[in-house]
Amino acid sequence: MTTESFRILDEKSLIEYIKATPSLASKLGNEVENLKIKEVGDGNLNFVYIVISPSGSIVIKQAIPYVRCIGESWPMTKERSYFEATALKRQHGLSPKHVPEVYHFDRAMSVIGMRYIEPPHIILRKGLIAGVEYPLLAEHMAEFMANTLFYTSLLYLTTTQHKNAVAEFCANVELCRLTEQVVFSDPYKVSEFNRWTSPYLDSDAEAVRNDKALKLEVAELKSKFCEKTQALIHGDLHTGSVMVTHESTQVIDPEFAFYGPMGFDVGAFIGNLFLAYFAQDGHADQGNDRKAYKAWIIDMVAETWNLFYKKFTSLWDIHKEGPGEAYLHEIYNDVELWELVKQKYMVDLFHDSLGFAAAKMIRRIVGVAHVEDLESITDPAKRADCERRALDFSKNLMKKHRTFNTITDVISTAL
Amino acid sequence: MTTESFRILDEKSLIEYIKATPSLASKLGNEVENLKIKEVGDGNLNFVYIVISPSGSIVIKQAIPYVRCIGESWPMTKERSYFEATALKRQHGLSPKHVPEVYHFDRAMSVIGMRYIEPPHIILRKGLIAGVEYPLLAEHMAEFMANTLFYTSLLYLTTTQHKNAVAEFCANVELCRLTEQVVFSDPYKVSEFNRWTSPYLDSDAEAVRNDKALKLEVAELKSKFCEKTQALIHGDLHTGSVMVTHESTQVIDPEFAFYGPMGFDVGAFIGNLFLAYFAQDGHADQGNDRKAYKAWIIDMVAETWNLFYKKFTSLWDIHKEGPGEAYLHEIYNDVELWELVKQKYMVDLFHDSLGFAAAKMIRRIVGVAHVEDLESITDPAKRADCERRALDFSKNLMKKHRTFNTITDVISTAL
Ligand SMILES: Nc1ncnc2c1ncn2[C@@H]1O[C@H](COP(=O)(O)OP(=O)(O)O)[C@@H](O)[C@H]1O
Ligand SMILES: Nc1ncnc2c1ncn2[C@@H]1O[C@H](COP(=O)(O)OP(=O)(O)O)[C@@H](O)[C@H]1O
Ligand SMILES: [Mg+2]
Ligand SMILES: [Mg+2]
Ligand SMILES: [Mg+2]
Ligand SMILES: [Mg+2]
Ligand SMILES: [Mg+2]
Repeated sequence: MTTESFRILDEKSLIEYIKATPSLASKLGNEVENLKIKEVGDGNLNFVYIVISPSGSIVIKQAIPYVRCIGESWPMTKERSYFEATALKRQHGLSPKHVPEVYHFDRAMSVIGMRYIEPPHIILRKGLIAGVEYPLLAEHMAEFMANTLFYTSLLYLTTTQHKNAVAEFCANVELCRLTEQVVFSDPYKVSEFNRWTSPYLDSDAEAVRNDKALKLEVAELKSKFCEKTQALIHGDLHTGSVMVTHESTQVIDPEFAFYGPMGFDVGAFIGNLFLAYFAQDGHADQGNDRKAYKAWIIDMVAETWNLFYKKFTSLWDIHKEGPGEAYLHEIYNDVELWELVKQKYMVDLFHDSLGFAAAKMIRRIVGVAHVEDLESITDPAKRADCERRALDFSKNLMKKHRTFNTITDVISTAL
Repeated sequence: MTTESFRILDEKSLIEYIKATPSLASKLGNEVENLKIKEVGDGNLNFVYIVISPSGSIVIKQAIPYVRCIGESWPMTKERSYFEATALKRQHGLSPKHVPEVYHFDRAMSVIGMRYIEPPHIILRKGLIAGVEYPLLAEHMAEFMANTLFYTSLLYLTTTQHKNAVAEFCANVELCRLTEQVVFSDPYKVSEFNRWTSPYLDSDAEAVRNDKALKLEVAELKSKFCEKTQALIHGDLHTGSVMVTHESTQVIDPEFAFYGPMGFDVGAFIGNLFLAYFAQDGHADQGNDRKAYKAWIIDMVAETWNLFYKKFTSLWDIHKEGPGEAYLHEIYNDVELWELVKQKYMVDLFHDSLGFAAAKMIRRIVGVAHVEDLESITDPAKRADCERRALDFSKNLMKKHRTFNTITDVISTAL
């Protein structure tokens, strides 16, 4: 069913919608009479329904024309659903093992039907809070990022394909604007939306607002976010956009996708791992001091970057005579030059990633939207301690992001 | 007259076209019976007609679906005319004293009607070859660049306006691709299109193709050209796109316009001034050693940058509480921080400009399209001498562009 007009679905109207939509009903084995439906949008923005029949399952995600957790007073285009569907399909094509398949998209209704990522998958952030190790996490995330970023960049695309894609995703500007505001602006000024663990962090929050070196760096990062059309980025790649089991890693929720700097995705993921790391002391108890788990998270940071580096540059090697127009083979075919080229590109990408990682951390401590890793630490003094260490680490990281040579150097400033 | 179908105009059909087009006929005082028409496209790409009636004058520029000087074997979208018209109108709005007014645009026919920039205006490049000083040149060019670049950037626009404009100009990709090829690629590889003063520069051309440090830098510049959507740039701002008298400076021919790095425009202009400078020894004769004129050109380089810096930053000061979303006033309102912010932005823009200036020079010596400044030196040995000095200067400039602090430092490497 593709309708011309939009209406917000509820559990009842959703059943009718599914019945009228063959691409969805068929995924439920056409057994649409006794559906089990559960709304699970933990969801600041959207509605997410798990729909289960005796012989199949789907997830339905609907965007509404405002921010769900705030209400109609904060309008937000439901067209984000179009960009989410488009990005999901493209990312599934590029990294099929780590992105759910899209079964159905209805632009007028802003409805996406996709694969249900079944239990025991849980949101990675919850696993990190619970202290669960995922042996394949770094490998899988490196794979997802390397594939989705490399293949949508000028290292693989012609400039014609690239500019077409850039233009298409320019229309997702409302979502970009939300990021601009909450990541790159609000934390650095007085804003009604900002919050922090008060009174403990009052002076820390004020220090952020008065830190000239920091504000100089965040300006450059914001400009990069707005101007550098390097690849189709996920745009919201924190640990709440990843679902995991021991064997599987699934990336969801790319409604913020657009052509931006690759480092924004890499940094989002790494920055959120660091947040999980700094939160661990707040989750330690007599049974588990979380020391080993902290070491594992730190390993994940290092492995994610190192594997990403390896996978990304090896895609580049494989396709060095491919269609990508940034580095023509005829110009860069010298062995030594080819290594220099990759090194230079990856150093820049590394520095971008560190800068954005820092920005994504800072905003989770003194900006509007916090992370459960830290929020779930009930003792505010303890939480503030964790947050302050995370904040000090990320302020230093932002100011010095262009001076680091290896991820090990970065990690040493966190320990 | 707006027709649905395209046909190439000649002097005869142009008259009919004008008669049927009130916006053009009226500029000729509706005296369309005894028009004087002259085709003046010195034009590698397009046809340009000067049309004069007893009581008025216009210029008609028509794009054709291929590169004029090559023929139908090198197709080139005539839609470039749409982007030229759109850019001309926007630039005229932002810098009315330095951009001709557009009277008429016919997209199907790829026809622009615009103000005739009347004699004694000549193409600046010709004036530089003739050794003519233009006292207001730097002032006017700085004004044109400051206005057109500042007001189309995120220093003045909202991110919504910016992304809309970026998307619109992404469609001018064919012209961008031409630049990518002839500026950033061909000179650094063997290409049937490349040429140079042979045999004098044979080993110089080969050295460019084998210079790893140079090729590493040009790769970064090419990526910036393709990815950095900083402002609506003219895209072809060499001294052949500027018409001058002692009192007036007019910028024409923005068919390459798109959202790119500001430094590409600033660098194009400065790089072409340097080319004029290095050509002077080839134009010296017993009556005029060109020493004083060389000093004047060098002054123009310094003044152009310094005045651009002044005008650009003062526009930014004026609009610091304006609509631009890159640097919110609430965040950057501290006096000292505000100065730091501007300095950092301008240092980056300076370095971009130097890198692009170098790229634009190199391609004029060992790439497909040369400049009359050098081509008009008839003695090939003499020409090769000038070219080699220009090439050595620009290779050094490209490799070290990020190390210069002032335009004076740059100039000292040219003298
Ligand atoms: N394909 C899916 N399979 C299983 N659960 C999902 C799926 N998509 C979303 N969810 C659940 O719904 C929650 C919200 O989905 P998400 O796409 O992140 O929405 P929002 O954009 O509102 O943040 C996720 O945290 C996850 O628990
Ligand atoms: N508005 C104008 N007034 C007077 N002469 C013009 C005008 N526009 C173009 N010309 C002349 O026509 C020539 C070619 O125009 P230009 O716009 O540079 O075309 P092309 O895109 O083919 O290079 C210019 O060098 C100049 O001599
Ligand atoms: Mg969420
Ligand atoms: Mg989500
Ligand atoms: Mg979301
Ligand atoms: Mg021209
Ligand atoms: Mg032209």
